Amino acid sequence: MREVAILGVGQTAVAEHWSLSLRQLAAQAGRAALHDAGLEPAQVQALYVGNMTSGSLNAQQHLGALVASELGLEGAEAMRIEAACGSAGATLRQGILAVGSGQMDTVLVVGVEKMTETVKGDTTAALVQAADADFEGAHGVTFVALNALIMRRYMLEHGYQHDDFAPFAINAHANGAKNPHAIFQEPITLKAYQRGRMVADPISLYDASPIGDGAAALLLVPAERAPEAVRILGSAIATDTLAVHDRTDVTWLSAVAKSAERAYAQAGVSPADIDLFELHDAFSIMAALSLEASGFAERGRGVRLAQDGVIFSNGRLPIASMGGLKSRGHPVGATGLYQLVEATLQLRGRAGAAQLDGLRLAMTQNIGGSGATVATHILGNVQ
Amino acid sequence: MREVAILGVGQTAVAEHWSLSLRQLAAQAGRAALHDAGLEPAQVQALYVGNMTSGSLNAQQHLGALVASELGLEGAEAMRIEAACGSAGATLRQGILAVGSGQMDTVLVVGVEKMTETVKGDTTAALVQAADADFEGAHGVTFVALNALIMRRYMLEHGYQHDDFAPFAINAHANGAKNPHAIFQEPITLKAYQRGRMVADPISLYDASPIGDGAAALLLVPAERAPEAVRILGSAIATDTLAVHDRTDVTWLSAVAKSAERAYAQAGVSPADIDLFELHDAFSIMAALSLEASGFAERGRGVRLAQDGVIFSNGRLPIASMGGLKSRGHPVGATGLYQLVEATLQLRGRAGAAQLDGLRLAMTQNIGGSGATVATHILGNVQ
Repeated sequence: MREVAILGVGQTAVAEHWSLSLRQLAAQAGRAALHDAGLEPAQVQALYVGNMTSGSLNAQQHLGALVASELGLEGAEAMRIEAACGSAGATLRQGILAVGSGQMDTVLVVGVEKMTETVKGDTTAALVQAADADFEGAHGVTFVALNALIMRRYMLEHGYQHDDFAPFAINAHANGAKNPHAIFQEPITLKAYQRGRMVADPISLYDASPIGDGAAALLLVPAERAPEAVRILGSAIATDTLAVHDRTDVTWLSAVAKSAERAYAQAGVSPADIDLFELHDAFSIMAALSLEASGFAERGRGVRLAQDGVIFSNGRLPIASMGGLKSRGHPVGATGLYQLVEATLQLRGRAGAAQLDGLRLAMTQNIGGSGATVATHILGNVQ
Repeated sequence: MREVAILGVGQTAVAEHWSLSLRQLAAQAGRAALHDAGLEPAQVQALYVGNMTSGSLNAQQHLGALVASELGLEGAEAMRIEAACGSAGATLRQGILAVGSGQMDTVLVVGVEKMTETVKGDTTAALVQAADADFEGAHGVTFVALNALIMRRYMLEHGYQHDDFAPFAINAHANGAKNPHAIFQEPITLKAYQRGRMVADPISLYDASPIGDGAAALLLVPAERAPEAVRILGSAIATDTLAVHDRTDVTWLSAVAKSAERAYAQAGVSPADIDLFELHDAFSIMAALSLEASGFAERGRGVRLAQDGVIFSNGRLPIASMGGLKSRGHPVGATGLYQLVEATLQLRGRAGAAQLDGLRLAMTQNIGGSGATVATHILGNVQ
């Protein structure tokens, strides 16, 4: 398969966008990516739109054709791709295969979600559709509650207290304060973390990422057409059971491990080579488990990477460098592409106040459900 | 891009499957395709699931990972693809690009829909999400009503009466009677067509296809690995505006024309070379418009092809050879793959009582919305 490069990136702020409709958000990010790439809409051959909840919350399916016509793509191939909160990572994956196949030279991928002002439905009910409807959702469990059960088990197995998770939130908010597109741009203190109200024990306010409205986009081309552009060196998706109770080991994210291993193999690298890891910190427990299953920490030691400062901007493996899901915000079906936009900006040296030094390789990881779909991508500058 | 072949096909009957859940339907079709291909689940590298309404009707998103684990695919890459009623055609398209890219050798595509026994929502409200929510759905229009407006306009422009559309329904039901997987297996008469109760004037009962529960699947491999298998010679998607009022000409399906032209060009054929056309007869007006925009009839003459018997089993261009959407049934996100299963069976000479003679090339066309997403595929046996 031929190599793929990222010629353009675009994003809206993550916010409560009451004045922008779903299609307008998507088009704004898409136009920004086209502008960044120096291309016109008519040059786009295919559009893939990542989204999870528009059917439940916006009474709208069929976002491929909808966004294509809003962008003026003149009949281009288009469709929507969904893998719960991993939708945008899956969307990127299809864009890469489309360009990699040789049949497409100019592909736009957009992730979009409009969750704060909706025409129908309930956000909590919409989000639990990422879990197993027949065996989890039907019993009234929420998505936060499922993650709380996993976090409680992890704390029991490894002897952690709630405070031990604080560095994940503190780091994310410190970095989000440097990102003008973040929904929260305020640092938080340990005391604030400790005082966060309980959501689903042991997950309190600062263990959970905020939903929001937003869209992010990438313009993909064959690497040979863009010798200076950031390249996609690894791209892999793996899956696990939706229902947490179907797993033999609920604190090991097997799809994270499989997806990361495949991406490392494609890129010919190991965890030690990764300089930046934009992981899926929808909940602080997910950050810890992702670090472990991706090979950055032994089992039970993911939290230690946070406590030891390894994950901070000045650490060996920064995570959530622009705020992560926790502080930039988590417009679910767009999140995976926000991660890519941010990693690309970091590799280009265009991350503004959040810029990290000495980056060679960045990894992104987008998770759908409680680890049921995992999309891992590895990016690098041309050496 | 390397050529792709269809090594296995599988389908459930289209019916009211009250004893089978969404995931069980999908797995049944997937297992049938694997069995037909002589492969084990662990050999599948990626699964793409086409579905439109599961979020609205079954309280379940995230069907990629869900169906992958139900099938025992052991962590395979998986995601869901949606393009309203064109979901399954779009799903096939992504499967083709995945195999065509060279990165995947064994890809399963499944279309599934469970619409008759649901846990929430309303089918009519779920289906109108294929249309423009802000400018069509919000005004209370239904999907049938939109097609009725198009049909009325067509009748006015070209001077047709309601009876003129009867041969589409009569042909579909005659052919569905020969398909054990069809939801309706009874021929109908002109009198029955004329007596059909009005749904949305001028669309009466036999102008509209029935919804149903069902799943259909294909197992795709590189053509060089399966020299005897049916090959995919053309594959293209094109889009148009969701809102019918945004089009300059509501009786010309421009996305049908673009998609068909691209598929013809890829396959190096013209309409005259096509021996079987499994088109998207969700409504009789859609059958007429598809015949015209695909190049089989002049504008306003699509209905004549039906009246002249060209579209019958013994005609020059059979359509709906196993019943079409009208008589086999229209489980919306699965329909595009039912078309492929049926075309493949016809090309293999395994279509049972519905078998046509002398087939060389078959074309399928799956439509999302009122012509907003159109996926056209051309299949052929190795010469």
